[in-house]
Amino acid sequence: MSSDHETSNIVTAAALVIGDEILSGRTADKNIGYIANHCTSIGIQLKEVRIVPDEEDQIVAAINALRAKYAYVFTTGGIGPTHDDITADSIAKAFGVPIDVDQRALDLLMPYYKKRGGELTPARLRMARIPDGAELVENTISVAPGFMIENVVTMAGIPNIMQVMLDAVTPRLKKGRMMHATAIDLSHPEGKVAQMLGDHQSEYPDVSMGSYPAMKDNRPCTQLVLRSINAEKLAEATEGLRKKLSEDGLI
Amino acid sequence: MSSDHETSNIVTAAALVIGDEILSGRTADKNIGYIANHCTSIGIQLKEVRIVPDEEDQIVAAINALRAKYAYVFTTGGIGPTHDDITADSIAKAFGVPIDVDQRALDLLMPYYKKRGGELTPARLRMARIPDGAELVENTISVAPGFMIENVVTMAGIPNIMQVMLDAVTPRLKKGRMMHATAIDLSHPEGKVAQMLGDHQSEYPDVSMGSYPAMKDNRPCTQLVLRSINAEKLAEATEGLRKKLSEDGLI
Repeated sequence: MSSDHETSNIVTAAALVIGDEILSGRTADKNIGYIANHCTSIGIQLKEVRIVPDEEDQIVAAINALRAKYAYVFTTGGIGPTHDDITADSIAKAFGVPIDVDQRALDLLMPYYKKRGGELTPARLRMARIPDGAELVENTISVAPGFMIENVVTMAGIPNIMQVMLDAVTPRLKKGRMMHATAIDLSHPEGKVAQMLGDHQSEYPDVSMGSYPAMKDNRPCTQLVLRSINAEKLAEATEGLRKKLSEDGLI
Repeated sequence: MSSDHETSNIVTAAALVIGDEILSGRTADKNIGYIANHCTSIGIQLKEVRIVPDEEDQIVAAINALRAKYAYVFTTGGIGPTHDDITADSIAKAFGVPIDVDQRALDLLMPYYKKRGGELTPARLRMARIPDGAELVENTISVAPGFMIENVVTMAGIPNIMQVMLDAVTPRLKKGRMMHATAIDLSHPEGKVAQMLGDHQSEYPDVSMGSYPAMKDNRPCTQLVLRSINAEKLAEATEGLRKKLSEDGLI
C-alpha cells in the first residue's frame, strides 16, 4: 500500500521530442531511450513521451498539456540557428512570456565565435533567444545553451549535446524515490506464465509486474520485470515468483 | 500554394506506443522509426507520436485525442495474454463499445494451439478479446490478431509481428499524395547556411526546408532536407539551393 509519504516522493516527467525529421522517418530518435534511462537512474518516473513536428501550435499545445500534468518536461530539438528552429519561441508563447536575445547567452556565444574567426550572424543570434525568466542550461560542447523555465527543460536535439545538457540540469531537479527493478528471463512464450503472473500481481499490489515477450532464435521467450519503490517488497515478490516458476518447471 | 485538391489528398496519422518498459528505458522502442518510414513510403504523413504507460486512463485519453485529430492512429503493444496487456479493453472503452472473446479470433487461435499441443488457457483467451465492430488484422507469425476499429489500428509490440500486421492492414488504408524529399549534405555547421536557407524557404512556401545538424568525426556538419508533395517544385527548389550554395563555396 502506498502511503502519502511515498506518494509525495514520486517525481514524474514527460519528454517532448520536436522535429519533422523524426516523424518522417529520416532521422531515428536517439534521445527518448537515453532520457528514459537517465530519469530512472535518478528517481524520476518518465510517464509520457510525445513527438511533434516543427509547428508552433503543436509545440505550444504539447508543452501546456505536459507541464500541467508532470513535475518536469524535457524537450529536445529545434533550438538551432535555422528558420525551422522554433522551439524557444514556441515555449515563450506557451508560457505567455516575451522572448528576445539574452545577454547571458550572448556572453557565451560571442567569445566562442570570435575565437573561431566566425561571425555572430543574425541566424546564429537566434540561438541566444531565451524566454523571459528562464535559467540557462550549459552546453559544454558547442556553447549555445539550453534553458529551463519553471518545470520545462529545453535541450538540443543532437544526442551528445542533449546528454551534456541533461547532466548540467540534473543537480537542479528534485528527485523522487528510486524505482527498483528485477528481471526473470524465461525461454517460454508468455502465455505459459500469464495466469501465474496475474495471480502473483494480485498478491503484491505494491510491485508492478510486466511481461515482455520477444523472439530469440525464432522461438518465443519472455522477460518478466518486477518494479517497485519498495526494495524489500520487491525482493520478496521476486523470490516468491521464482519459487512458483521453479515448482512448475519453468525455470 | 496548396490547392484544395492537394489539401484533400493529404492523409495524416499518429502512432501510440503503449508500454511501461519503453518509458522506464528497459526496452528501446524499435517501432516508431519503422512506422514513420512505412507511412512516408505509402503517402501517409505521420504527424504525432505518443508513448504512454500500461494505464487505462492514459491509453483512453491518448486514443480519443489522436483519433479525433488524424486520419489514422497506429498503436503498438499491450495485446498479449498477461494481466498488464490492457490495450484492447482500453480501446473498447475509448470507443464506448463492448469487448469479449471474438469467434473469428478464436477460430485462428484454437487450431494454432491444438497443433502445438498447447492449451487455450484463460490467459491466452485474452488475446481473442476484440472490441465490437473491429476488423481483424492478420498476424502471419504467431496468429493472435491485431484489429482495426474505425480509424484506429492496433498492433503487437514485438517488432517483427508489428511489421507483418502493418503490411496486412496497409491495403485497407487510404493513401495521400507522396511526400518527395531531397537532401544536401554539407561539411559546415548550420549557422553558415541558416540565412540562405531561410531566404530560400521564403521563395518556396510549397517546399518544406529543414536543417539537421550532426557531428561527424567531431566536426559539425549539416544535412539540408527539402520536402514537398509537388515533385516539380521540389526539384526546382533543390536545384536553386545547390546553385546558391555552390556560388558561396559551401558545396
